[in-house]
Amino acid sequence: MKKYYFTKLSDKKKKELIKRKAISSDSVKKTVEKICSDVKRNGLKSAIKYANKFDGFSSDNVYVTEKEFSEAEKLLSSEIKSAVKSAYKNIYKFHAKQYPKDYFIETINGVKCGRKFLPIENVGVYIPAGTAPLPSTMLMLGVPSQIAGCKRIVVFSPAKDKINPAILYAAKLCGIKEFIKIGGAQGISLLAYGSDNFKKVDKIFGPGNQFVTTAKSVVSIDPDGCAIDMIAGPSELLVIADNFANPDFVAADLLSQAEHGKDSMVILLTASEDLIRKVGDSLNQQLKNLPRKVFAKATIESSFCMLVDDVNDAFNFSNTFAPEHLILNLKNAKKYLNKVVNAGSVFIGEYTPESAGDYASGTNHSLPTFGFARSSSGVGVEMFMKGVTFQSINKKGIKSLSKTIITLAETESLQAHAEAVKVRLK
Amino acid sequence: MKKYYFTKLSDKKKKELIKRKAISSDSVKKTVEKICSDVKRNGLKSAIKYANKFDGFSSDNVYVTEKEFSEAEKLLSSEIKSAVKSAYKNIYKFHAKQYPKDYFIETINGVKCGRKFLPIENVGVYIPAGTAPLPSTMLMLGVPSQIAGCKRIVVFSPAKDKINPAILYAAKLCGIKEFIKIGGAQGISLLAYGSDNFKKVDKIFGPGNQFVTTAKSVVSIDPDGCAIDMIAGPSELLVIADNFANPDFVAADLLSQAEHGKDSMVILLTASEDLIRKVGDSLNQQLKNLPRKVFAKATIESSFCMLVDDVNDAFNFSNTFAPEHLILNLKNAKKYLNKVVNAGSVFIGEYTPESAGDYASGTNHSLPTFGFARSSSGVGVEMFMKGVTFQSINKKGIKSLSKTIITLAETESLQAHAEAVKVRLK
Repeated sequence: MKKYYFTKLSDKKKKELIKRKAISSDSVKKTVEKICSDVKRNGLKSAIKYANKFDGFSSDNVYVTEKEFSEAEKLLSSEIKSAVKSAYKNIYKFHAKQYPKDYFIETINGVKCGRKFLPIENVGVYIPAGTAPLPSTMLMLGVPSQIAGCKRIVVFSPAKDKINPAILYAAKLCGIKEFIKIGGAQGISLLAYGSDNFKKVDKIFGPGNQFVTTAKSVVSIDPDGCAIDMIAGPSELLVIADNFANPDFVAADLLSQAEHGKDSMVILLTASEDLIRKVGDSLNQQLKNLPRKVFAKATIESSFCMLVDDVNDAFNFSNTFAPEHLILNLKNAKKYLNKVVNAGSVFIGEYTPESAGDYASGTNHSLPTFGFARSSSGVGVEMFMKGVTFQSINKKGIKSLSKTIITLAETESLQAHAEAVKVRLK
Repeated sequence: MKKYYFTKLSDKKKKELIKRKAISSDSVKKTVEKICSDVKRNGLKSAIKYANKFDGFSSDNVYVTEKEFSEAEKLLSSEIKSAVKSAYKNIYKFHAKQYPKDYFIETINGVKCGRKFLPIENVGVYIPAGTAPLPSTMLMLGVPSQIAGCKRIVVFSPAKDKINPAILYAAKLCGIKEFIKIGGAQGISLLAYGSDNFKKVDKIFGPGNQFVTTAKSVVSIDPDGCAIDMIAGPSELLVIADNFANPDFVAADLLSQAEHGKDSMVILLTASEDLIRKVGDSLNQQLKNLPRKVFAKATIESSFCMLVDDVNDAFNFSNTFAPEHLILNLKNAKKYLNKVVNAGSVFIGEYTPESAGDYASGTNHSLPTFGFARSSSGVGVEMFMKGVTFQSINKKGIKSLSKTIITLAETESLQAHAEAVKVRLK
């Protein structure tokens, strides 16, 4: 890990440290745009062609069958099934509290206004399948869509032939019935644009590699496309720790994030030189035995720790960086909560590793990266819904509002807006 | 207005009727991309150059001064000031109910999780200045940002020299201190990317012409850019009416939407041939006296009414169309509310014109167009905030979760995720 001294950094250098690596290259963009426009025009046929080219997909049915769902359950150990069920339970409990409340109030006498949340009818949930299966992502997107009550939830994931049984088991728990074996940019395009025999969805959720992310951004700004949850870059972790922190815990947390891929980003902020040294030693020790040490080592090498004067400097930097994950490994960590301004998810105290949030504490692991934590939330139930406003005005109400509406409409030179009120007062 | 019979429509024709006109052309895209990359590279200087070129901006100060704010107040009639204040009050009352609730729960013994909503620190609010000033839009975006508690709210609008006084008065009511006189694609880029002397914002809100909308989509998918509220197309109104509806009310409502611009879209659905005829007559009558009849007439001519067999057909079409505004001019309109699946804002009963929601009922008039009502809400307080999740786990809690986390991490081949738990159990 590189080492910086916060007080010695120029503003320019600080800005540089906050900057993320580019999500996608021009060549990726070009490839993705070609795929998107191809699938937009030629539909399922074209999506299958790309799925065959990129993922070796060769089945005669893009849908996971009933039989595949029930076989998946048989293939899994009881240990895995019970872990998926436990995680499901905690995630469900946490997310159920997010169901948004409708309200109806009288703003003035005779004018009733309200907002009612309705599930998005058709949603797509993307589950990546890179180096390993991700049943946890299935839960993190399946549970809130289930709570929201979306009528049709289409899960899609790249596959040569079979979908990993743990993913199918998690999908079944979430009530998923429609699961298709096409992923990548072609999967995103198919869901966003639809095809003759495949109804398009209204919003797509889920993480993915740079092809998936780029395709999501392409369809999200095409009015013929659909909405997306967020633009997701590589995973990030920032740890703020003090002298009381166990260096082995800190090192283990940094590594848990670093193993995701070479482009992950981990940062340690502390006022303790001693801790930096000890964490460095522990990193070297723990790295040795990791199966994914190639990724973890590359990330650690490109990441940095920073010596700060005090905890305020640390929060100052962290809030500007706006990390996806923020661990507060500080004595009496809770008392610093009000200092958090920008972060995706916060892990408080020494017994709260980030991996708890990845799987089982109950919070969502689909979180804003790339500094989007400044403006965006992680996935929640309300993202699978939309708030529709209502107003119901009686004769007395429109009379009371009339002067305001007519004056403002005339100020804005919108006479017909005024007339729509006047005609009702006659 | 063209006239269709719902039961006679082919699926293909229905699809066609639901399709919106393209928001922007390739040539607009090209121009906008050039402006965005110019301003991204050269900052304020370049934004001013374009503001001069497109809007004739020539002042030596891009900021509205204290003096301009107080002068604005003096320029306005007491009638306008009181209308702005009344509208502000209703909008405030309605939106205050949207402040999202934080929560903290124990998912299992020793594992506390929560979500806390924090205001987005830096937001940009765009107020278009086309054919007329829009103080109402200032209120619709200013009020929720004020309730959310955003630290810095930058309002921006194109101007040759002065900003319209009604807009400045509305801005002042919303507590706005930073108001800059640059709009268009150059304004969007300046706010999204920032400049040497101008700190970028985290999210941009507000409607605009095709240059503004295209610029918003460009910066929203550039990780160096910022988030946006929504991609907004031309305004839309769908009216479902029955035999009991007053044809003059229906015609006035259609015209109030039609006068926005030639690309607006209005639709009437009814089971009554008689109503269609009477509304047609009334439209011709009312059109005569409208100052913006050029726009209104063009919109009416390109729009359509449709004869349906019953109210179910009407809702069927309306929900597929997903209109920005939906008027239910039906006897006992309230009893049909549960039939609404996709709409931005709904106007219930004969004394509820759409223009009430545009100005003063209390609901927001920044609403999803172009079918985005299938997946998105109109502007609300929570869009100026983000939900940060928290978890605090004690030693007992991490022990209880350990089996689930370790099993799932190992299923996903993420050994370091498992180790971060194991190291804490030693």
